[in-house]
Amino acid sequence: MILNFVTGNEGKFKEVKQILSKFQINVKQAKVELIEPQIEDIKEVSKSKAIQAFEKLREPVFVEDAGLFIDSLNGFPGAFSAFVYKKIGCEGILQLMKNKSNRDAFFASSIAFMSFSLREPVVFYAEVKGKIANEKRGSSGFGFDPIFIPNGYDKTFAELGEEKNEISHRRKALDLFIEFLLKNR
Amino acid sequence: MILNFVTGNEGKFKEVKQILSKFQINVKQAKVELIEPQIEDIKEVSKSKAIQAFEKLREPVFVEDAGLFIDSLNGFPGAFSAFVYKKIGCEGILQLMKNKSNRDAFFASSIAFMSFSLREPVVFYAEVKGKIANEKRGSSGFGFDPIFIPNGYDKTFAELGEEKNEISHRRKALDLFIEFLLKNR
Repeated sequence: MILNFVTGNEGKFKEVKQILSKFQINVKQAKVELIEPQIEDIKEVSKSKAIQAFEKLREPVFVEDAGLFIDSLNGFPGAFSAFVYKKIGCEGILQLMKNKSNRDAFFASSIAFMSFSLREPVVFYAEVKGKIANEKRGSSGFGFDPIFIPNGYDKTFAELGEEKNEISHRRKALDLFIEFLLKNR
Repeated sequence: MILNFVTGNEGKFKEVKQILSKFQINVKQAKVELIEPQIEDIKEVSKSKAIQAFEKLREPVFVEDAGLFIDSLNGFPGAFSAFVYKKIGCEGILQLMKNKSNRDAFFASSIAFMSFSLREPVVFYAEVKGKIANEKRGSSGFGFDPIFIPNGYDKTFAELGEEKNEISHRRKALDLFIEFLLKNR
């Protein structure tokens, strides 16, 4: 089974490929021009993009959207994490979090899969709760990984290295996706 | 001449209606569900939305997209100003600008107009340069108006009241639009 993973993010592709390979699921990176809808619900974002990608490729495809949702910033940067990261980085988020006592946050991942046998995309969604660190730590992973400490750990995602892929939001959503794939093989 | 202005933003509608009424151009507010594409170029955003709105309404339509682009934040919040305002407000921007010596910024407005006689939307774009204030000032207008001081003034857009509508990015884009409308009446 070879699936098209539509993403322009190399870090994300590497992470997903690594996880899926353990289950003998092959994935190839497909770069397709998609309209990223400016909506706050990442489930709806991924669904819209899976439909668009399937219409263009006419092969089984999946997309993954993720976001960091910070409680004391009303869920910012959320579905717009990639844009916000590009513009203000981890430093910008740390600046916004200065003097905030509530540092609760969660990372969410939404995978939408579409194929010929489906009438509409199937969505797999998961979250990991944690806290925003007081400073950047670690260098693995990508995006806001250096400032997110998952609950039950004292390291950031970027300090956890490969261990991140055992516990991350993306891993949890992928687990649901893998379960579906193996059941419907 | 009655034009459909597609927007869900009451403050924006009021401002545009006020300006256009001086030129005997009537405008009504149309609320249409549009996909707001997550792209950074507000010209492209407005163009996409004008096409979508015209396809749904089949009447002459225009949309207006605006954004605040801050130099020292790499153009943040830009095309995502509405989302960023909703989540972190003026306070969030002021926090990000703390200790930044370069406070240059500009407001941009892009109007896209589509009608039966056009093959694709016509876009009218304008900018107003200025600076980010050190604190919120004034209460008229909406969005980031209380923290933007246009060049040549010492008041923020929110302190300028109706005078804002004589000099704003939106006014300048509307002037181009009005010129086009009167020429093609």
